[in-house]
Amino acid sequence: MTNTKFVTPIDDRYFEDYVPRAVYECGCIGVEEAEIIAFGQRFDPQPFHTDREAARQSPFGGLIASGWHTASLMMRLFVEHYLSRVASLGSPGVDELRWLKPVRPGDMLSLRVTVLEAKPSRSKPDRGLVRSYIEVLNQHSEVVMTMKALNFLQRRGT
Amino acid sequence: MTNTKFVTPIDDRYFEDYVPRAVYECGCIGVEEAEIIAFGQRFDPQPFHTDREAARQSPFGGLIASGWHTASLMMRLFVEHYLSRVASLGSPGVDELRWLKPVRPGDMLSLRVTVLEAKPSRSKPDRGLVRSYIEVLNQHSEVVMTMKALNFLQRRGT
Repeated sequence: MTNTKFVTPIDDRYFEDYVPRAVYECGCIGVEEAEIIAFGQRFDPQPFHTDREAARQSPFGGLIASGWHTASLMMRLFVEHYLSRVASLGSPGVDELRWLKPVRPGDMLSLRVTVLEAKPSRSKPDRGLVRSYIEVLNQHSEVVMTMKALNFLQRRGT
Repeated sequence: MTNTKFVTPIDDRYFEDYVPRAVYECGCIGVEEAEIIAFGQRFDPQPFHTDREAARQSPFGGLIASGWHTASLMMRLFVEHYLSRVASLGSPGVDELRWLKPVRPGDMLSLRVTVLEAKPSRSKPDRGLVRSYIEVLNQHSEVVMTMKALNFLQRRGT
């Protein structure tokens, strides 16, 4: 697969602009310790997300972000750089979400997205379903999370 | 499948206490409009998560929670009522995450979890992998989200 630059600005991108096998590398977001702890306290209160000292003594050797925090940071990049805000009609779900490596305070995450499939809806002619493969990378180019996303996108001119 | 009460308190629950086909119904958490908007602004800045007026004019007819916010609220219930904090060794990922119905301000979410499979690790004798089917329900007993979770859990006495 080849690396492809965006050909259509995200605010003018519709279903037709998602071409299978196109690959996008985009975005950069920092992981802050305070947010790891706050997210953990509210949504995932396990000691290795919320307590620096307990985390140090855990198998992870230090604080790590909740997998849902990592997924949420991925979504921020996905919305800002890939998912068209003018055409997004929501998502039925995701498949094969995998957390491969710990995400730690100070990490910088970026996104690599590959268009897997783009299929017009049979029942609703105004939209299509795009299936994408998402990889989240850290500053060492290690893949820390992967998943397959499904997104409904509006067709151009409907 | 029959409905089963917890037989082991969550703070003394290890891999061996997760018995396939056991069903747990547990927890209750409220969905607040302010948190929907704050979560959306940080992690999923699409208008139907962040802007009351734009959301009203969207296909959803009003503000809805980001799917990642719903998943994170699910995790809070999962950690507090199902996942053993003494034995949890993290998760390699989830499968077939599906958002079935919109989650709106004022909704009350609860959890139904079914143990699908519990398999001792072949390479690491101190742990096992538990596969669970998770349903998130709203106050009308409608299933709003489902997924299959994988969790590593410590074996008793290791």
